Amino acid sequence: MSSQDLPRVRGFKFAARSAGIKKSGRLDLALIYSEVPARCAGVFTTNKVMAAPLVVTIPRIRQGLCQAVLVNSGNANACTGEQGLRDALACNALAAQALGISEDLVAVASTGVIGAPLPMNKFEQHIPLLPAQLESGGAAQVAEAIRTTDAFVKTGWREACVAGQPYHLLGIAKGAGMIHPNMATMLAYVVTDAQVEQTFLDVCLRRAVAGSFNAISVDGDTSTNDMVLILSNGQANTPEICGNTPEGDEFAGLLNDLLVDLAKMIVRDGEGATKVVEIRVRGAADSDGAVQVARSVATSNLVKTAFFGEDANWGRIIAAVGYAGVEVDPDRIDIFFDEVAVVRQGVGTGKDLEEQASEVLKKPEFQVLIDLHLGSGEGVYYTSDLNYDYIKINADYRT
Amino acid sequence: MSSQDLPRVRGFKFAARSAGIKKSGRLDLALIYSEVPARCAGVFTTNKVMAAPLVVTIPRIRQGLCQAVLVNSGNANACTGEQGLRDALACNALAAQALGISEDLVAVASTGVIGAPLPMNKFEQHIPLLPAQLESGGAAQVAEAIRTTDAFVKTGWREACVAGQPYHLLGIAKGAGMIHPNMATMLAYVVTDAQVEQTFLDVCLRRAVAGSFNAISVDGDTSTNDMVLILSNGQANTPEICGNTPEGDEFAGLLNDLLVDLAKMIVRDGEGATKVVEIRVRGAADSDGAVQVARSVATSNLVKTAFFGEDANWGRIIAAVGYAGVEVDPDRIDIFFDEVAVVRQGVGTGKDLEEQASEVLKKPEFQVLIDLHLGSGEGVYYTSDLNYDYIKINADYRT
Repeated sequence: MSSQDLPRVRGFKFAARSAGIKKSGRLDLALIYSEVPARCAGVFTTNKVMAAPLVVTIPRIRQGLCQAVLVNSGNANACTGEQGLRDALACNALAAQALGISEDLVAVASTGVIGAPLPMNKFEQHIPLLPAQLESGGAAQVAEAIRTTDAFVKTGWREACVAGQPYHLLGIAKGAGMIHPNMATMLAYVVTDAQVEQTFLDVCLRRAVAGSFNAISVDGDTSTNDMVLILSNGQANTPEICGNTPEGDEFAGLLNDLLVDLAKMIVRDGEGATKVVEIRVRGAADSDGAVQVARSVATSNLVKTAFFGEDANWGRIIAAVGYAGVEVDPDRIDIFFDEVAVVRQGVGTGKDLEEQASEVLKKPEFQVLIDLHLGSGEGVYYTSDLNYDYIKINADYRT
Repeated sequence: MSSQDLPRVRGFKFAARSAGIKKSGRLDLALIYSEVPARCAGVFTTNKVMAAPLVVTIPRIRQGLCQAVLVNSGNANACTGEQGLRDALACNALAAQALGISEDLVAVASTGVIGAPLPMNKFEQHIPLLPAQLESGGAAQVAEAIRTTDAFVKTGWREACVAGQPYHLLGIAKGAGMIHPNMATMLAYVVTDAQVEQTFLDVCLRRAVAGSFNAISVDGDTSTNDMVLILSNGQANTPEICGNTPEGDEFAGLLNDLLVDLAKMIVRDGEGATKVVEIRVRGAADSDGAVQVARSVATSNLVKTAFFGEDANWGRIIAAVGYAGVEVDPDRIDIFFDEVAVVRQGVGTGKDLEEQASEVLKKPEFQVLIDLHLGSGEGVYYTSDLNYDYIKINADYRT
C-alpha cells in the first residue's frame, strides 16, 4: 500500500513545509488539523529526561480535546533548559494564532538532535504559512516531514463500519528502531473520523501501544521525545463507539493491527536491519512474565547478532530466557524457529533440525517461539538483527 | 606483571593438560589443588538455566570446604539434561579418586559450547594423569587452559602481612566481556594462603564480586556457567583474619582490588573492544540507584557505539540516565568526560568543551562521571565500546 493510496479521513487536513530546520532542506515542519476539536489520548515517553514539547503537550492532551498537532524534525528541543520550554510554548502559541484556535487545543512535538536550541526565527516565519497549505490528502507529506534517519515513510490505515456508517483510521509514524534517543526516536499519530467514547479511546490506545510500539526493540533505548497520539473527531457521523460492545472490540482490534503494522515498519527500518523477528513466548506463568522473557531475548545483542549471522544459536536464546528474571523450569523449555523445533525439554534436538532452522534464519521475517510449559501466559516482542550497519550509522552519526 | 612473575601461594598446586576437548589441541583441562582442605566461598550465575557442573558444585561449596577445582574449556556441559548431570558427577568422582580425597571436596566447572555432551572418554583418560603434574608454579598454565575466546590470559595477585606473617592472594580468570553465554562467559578462582574466618570470607567475596565482575558489561548477557570461587587454606600460618578488624579491612580491600583488576581485563578483552570506560555515578539518592543508573549507561548500545565513534554524545548518556528507572532531576545532572564538563544542570556546555571531551574519548581508558546532585549514593560500572569486531566475532562464531 503506497502513501498515495491513503484514504481521506473526514474533517482532517494536513500540511508540511521545508522550514530550514534540517540542513538538508527537506520537509521538516508539519501540521495535522481537525476541523473540529477532536477527542484525544496520548502515550508519552517514560524517560525521566523529558523534552520540552512533551512538557507542554501532556497536560493539553490530558484535558481530552485536541484540534492541531505541530511537529518539527531536525531538532528535538531536549536538554535545552528554560529556554527550551519557552520555545515550545512559543511554537504552541504561533500555531494556535495561525489557526485561530485556543492554545489548549494545540499539541507540539519535536524530533532531532538533542541539546541545541530551536531556531525560533524559522518557526516564526513558517508556522503562519502552514494553515493555507492544509489539505485532506496531505498525510503522506506529514509522514515525510517527520522523518529523521528513517529510510522510508511509515503510514497505514484501516476502515470499518458502525451502523452502516464507514469510518477510517489513518496512522503516521517515524522511528528507526528506537535507536536514536538524540533523534527523538519514535512519534506516531493516528487520526480517526469515528466518534469514540473518551475513556475507551484512552484504554484502546494504551493497550495497542503496549502490544506494538512498546513491544519492539532494536536496542532497548528509550527516547526523551517519544509520543503517540490519537485524535477522534466524529466527522464520519458514526454512533459513539464504546467499550464492551462488538463495535468497540472491532475498533480496538483495528487500532491494534494498525499500530503493530507501524511498529514492524520501525523494526524493519532499525538502522541497518536486514530481518524482522517475532519473539513469541507461550506457557509462562502469566502474561507479564511472558513479555519479560520475550523482551530479554529480543534485546540480547548476542541473539540479535546470531540472527545476522543466520546461526540457529539456541544456546544464546535459552541463556537470555534464563536471565530474564522470571521463574522458568529449564527442563520444560521448547524452542522453535518457525515450525522447526531446535530445543525440546531444555535439550537440543540435534544437528539435522539445527540445520533446518538455519534455513529459517535466511528469511527476512520469521518467528522464534519459546514455550515455557508452566502456565497460559503469552507475550510477544518484535526485534531485528544487529549488524555492521548499526555500528556504522551510530558511531558516525554526528561526525 | 607477566604471568611468569606470579607468586607461589603456600600449599596450592596447579596442573593443566591438552585433553583434546578443544579442537585446537590447546590446553583445555585444569586442576587447582590445596594440600589441605581449604575454607571456600563461591558466587554463581543467577541465570535460571544453570549448567550441570554448577548444580554439582554449589552444594559442595556451601559446605564450606574445598580442596580441588577441576575446570575444562571447550564444552560448557549446559543444556545437556540428565546426561550432563551424570557427566559432571563422573568428572567430580574421577578427580576425587585421582587425588585420593572425598568427592565433597572437589568443585567442577566447564566453559565452552552449550548443548553438546561432554566427551567423557577424554575425561576418563586425562583426569587420572593430572595429579602427577601438580606444581606450585603452574597457575599460569591453568589460566591458559580455561581460556575460550579470551585474547589474553588473565591473572593477578596481591600480598600483605598479618602479625608479621606474609600471605598472598592469587587470582585467575577467564572471560571476554560477558559476551559469550555459549562459551560459559566468566570464571574466576582466587586462592590465598591466609587463614580467613569462614563467614567473613563469604562476605568479602560477595562484596568484591558486586563491585567488579557484577559491575562490568560488554553486552549485559549473563551466562549459564558463571562462577567465582575463593579458597583459603591457611598455609601461610597467619592468625585468623576476621571482619571488623584492620587486617580484615586490608584483606577485603586487597580482594576487591584484585577482582576489579581481573574484571577490567575482561572488559578490555570484550571481543573487539578498543576502550575501557569507567561509568561513575555520584549524588544518587542511594547507592542502589547509582549502580542502576551506571548500568543503564554502561549497557546502552548507543552510548557504547558513540564511544567507538569517539563522539562526546552526551545526549545518549542523558537519555540512558533518564530511562534507568531511578528518580532523577534532569535540571541537576552534570556530566564529565574525565575532567571536561559537557553538561551542567541538564544543559550542554557548548561546542568548545564538547570538542575537548572528544579528545578524552580518543584515550584507551577514561571516565564518564555523572553527578545527579540528589544525595550521596555512588556507584560504578565498567564498560567497553561496541564496534564492528563485536558483530564479526559473534555473527561468525559457530559458522
